[in-house]
Amino acid sequence: MDGEAGRVLKVVIVGGGFAGLYAARRLRNAPVRVTLIDKRNFHLFQPLLYQVATGGLSPSDVASPLRRILRKQKNTRVLMGEMVGLDTAQRRVILDNGWVEYDYLIVATGAENDYFGRNEWQEVAPGLKTVEDATAMRARILAAFEGAERESGAEERVNWMTFVVIGAGPTGVELAGALGEIARQTLKNDFRSIDPSQARILLLDAGERVLAGYPEELSAKAERHLIGLGVRAWCGLRVEEVTGDGVWVRNRDGEREWIGAKTVLWAAGVRATGAGEILREEAGAELDRRGAVRVEEDLSLPGHPEIFVAGDLAHVEMDDGRAVPGVAPAAIQMGIFAAEAIKRRIRREDAGRFRYRDKGSLAVIGRHAAVAWFGRLRFGGVWAWLAWLFIHILYLVGYQNRLLVLLQWALKYVTFNPRARLITGEAVEAPKAARVEG
Amino acid sequence: MDGEAGRVLKVVIVGGGFAGLYAARRLRNAPVRVTLIDKRNFHLFQPLLYQVATGGLSPSDVASPLRRILRKQKNTRVLMGEMVGLDTAQRRVILDNGWVEYDYLIVATGAENDYFGRNEWQEVAPGLKTVEDATAMRARILAAFEGAERESGAEERVNWMTFVVIGAGPTGVELAGALGEIARQTLKNDFRSIDPSQARILLLDAGERVLAGYPEELSAKAERHLIGLGVRAWCGLRVEEVTGDGVWVRNRDGEREWIGAKTVLWAAGVRATGAGEILREEAGAELDRRGAVRVEEDLSLPGHPEIFVAGDLAHVEMDDGRAVPGVAPAAIQMGIFAAEAIKRRIRREDAGRFRYRDKGSLAVIGRHAAVAWFGRLRFGGVWAWLAWLFIHILYLVGYQNRLLVLLQWALKYVTFNPRARLITGEAVEAPKAARVEG
Repeated sequence: MDGEAGRVLKVVIVGGGFAGLYAARRLRNAPVRVTLIDKRNFHLFQPLLYQVATGGLSPSDVASPLRRILRKQKNTRVLMGEMVGLDTAQRRVILDNGWVEYDYLIVATGAENDYFGRNEWQEVAPGLKTVEDATAMRARILAAFEGAERESGAEERVNWMTFVVIGAGPTGVELAGALGEIARQTLKNDFRSIDPSQARILLLDAGERVLAGYPEELSAKAERHLIGLGVRAWCGLRVEEVTGDGVWVRNRDGEREWIGAKTVLWAAGVRATGAGEILREEAGAELDRRGAVRVEEDLSLPGHPEIFVAGDLAHVEMDDGRAVPGVAPAAIQMGIFAAEAIKRRIRREDAGRFRYRDKGSLAVIGRHAAVAWFGRLRFGGVWAWLAWLFIHILYLVGYQNRLLVLLQWALKYVTFNPRARLITGEAVEAPKAARVEG
Repeated sequence: MDGEAGRVLKVVIVGGGFAGLYAARRLRNAPVRVTLIDKRNFHLFQPLLYQVATGGLSPSDVASPLRRILRKQKNTRVLMGEMVGLDTAQRRVILDNGWVEYDYLIVATGAENDYFGRNEWQEVAPGLKTVEDATAMRARILAAFEGAERESGAEERVNWMTFVVIGAGPTGVELAGALGEIARQTLKNDFRSIDPSQARILLLDAGERVLAGYPEELSAKAERHLIGLGVRAWCGLRVEEVTGDGVWVRNRDGEREWIGAKTVLWAAGVRATGAGEILREEAGAELDRRGAVRVEEDLSLPGHPEIFVAGDLAHVEMDDGRAVPGVAPAAIQMGIFAAEAIKRRIRREDAGRFRYRDKGSLAVIGRHAAVAWFGRLRFGGVWAWLAWLFIHILYLVGYQNRLLVLLQWALKYVTFNPRARLITGEAVEAPKAARVEG
């Protein structure tokens, strides 16, 4: 099973997200030496990141050190580092300081927030891709309530109490729902000058409806649940400017409108990470509009059967011509497929063809409701929420013992986990602008 | 019980640490309106911060939102803000944007890391006073092991694997002990190129022995426990320079020596926060050498019976002329005393005299040993550790239900809580300098 010279073949995986991690695990019994490289030392369970942003969970609840997950997998080493280049002739991944040799390479560095060219908005409207994003978002949200409590001016207080979420896809809906719950329930008795349940939570989207990717009946259900949590979904509004004090939007009639809000959260879109550019320059890869790499049907790079691309970084078309969506199950499937394809290549077999199996979609709205879309089976409410809970626990790979995790979460859940509501990091300055007198 | 004009008297407390929080709680049934002001939105359980720094606990395990702790105390409001000035004539605390009126004021802003005038060392040798300090320290420690795993050069690898803790007081001993345990046990199987148990952990101190404030027998016990964890205590060494690559020290014979180490942690001392300066300028306070405010025997400021100083910011002398130590029990006692003194003043009684009751000292070394000093009762080992655990659980004020906390901690303890070992924040750059080839 070894390479031509009888040596052990080297598989390098760049990125420890769902695609990279599942690829590494699938190679545990393969006759290869695996090197998993990630900028961070942990795998992040992205689907629950919105809970960190809204103070329901702590970062350590949704992240687990890669080294820990893979400690028993003896053919695999984990390196902390960032791919800054690629030498396809010598088959080396270039890191910021050094290089790693490969026989097979899987690039799975995922996606990042996309501000549609307006990167300056990042400062005032944090997105939700990294742990730091999430804690920054949390600090903004909590600091806004602190600002409102401090604020002497009535008008300014309304601005502190207004929260704008841009983008009504699953992430935006989850964020807005969690915000509604914080305001209505979690913070109920915590303040003296303000009533948190009076917070205005606005979910903005340029499209026709919330959860545009879902069937209309589920969009309607989701919107009803959101209204129940005090969230107003304003669709058909295009965001034209974002500042620290609010957003300028243009409605369908072309009218421009100002929405004053001290807290603006970005959930409007993601694009592929910069590794795509490296693959374009060094390996002739072709990128799609959002920077993702167009791959062969076996997920390999055209002209480079030894290089695979998986997860959000890969642009893969389904039979109907649509691209495979950027969701965790798709990344997992691609990671596993890439690992299997490498195993087949080593056995001199055909790598096969990747087929995405859509197992359904779930979007959660607060702590008791969700909408579920499993093909013809479509439902909302508490049952969808239970399905969401079950699936998320099931997929918590490598997170110690799932039972322990479940127990910890249950504890946090029944107690509303007040202790995750810490304002830490750089964003603590926010409420200072609020004026207090008396 | 009201003020002269029949209005409700206003008590302002600046600082939500042990002194400030206990003062606020003690005023819950008093006929006053309490405002508790803190820069942060949470109370930090400082004695366990070293656990966050060494990846044993998460920030949310040792911090609790002040608002949450005091939510049922209806006469109290919490404001996030920083005292930047004081107007004793108008009796106003000046915040960064606004002011708050007081009839009685308690200032309890605590202490911060003291680099003895070498503030540039802060960059390379983080101290341990804030949550951000702790996560920065954690990131440094974990990134050093990552750097060692990446590093191709043998000599450089030793530097990555060398950890210097400056200052062998309780904090330094706790940090070094926890580091020893991480290296020997927690990370045992996580790496491929390095053996974490080969890490060199050096505890440096200019004095004669570790835990210089403790009886000699306990210092000896502590050092034995440390040696058992692979920590070498080097006393009689004065640190002259700290860089990102190590420290220059001078020994008792006047010889200068270089210790190569990529990770240097600062536990050498603290000084009072800047609020002391404000009290000096605006209220004529006198400060001691480390910036603490000299107070009357009732903890009030000389000439200002309406202003009290409590906790680490206060310089209080005991009968034997020594200052009350800067430990949590002392801060708690001062906070409670200040609150009671205010109540007595309102009743037109004498405020009384503060007397520190030394309830003993405990320093923990790893997960199974500590040294305990309760007057004549002095012991070490696992019983001291159990005493430490019991007392710390007992003092977890306001942290939801103590039973729940205990349960959560037990879970983290038996599982060695791998999930707290996240490298987050700005310090993630560290291991990049390690060269990888192959």
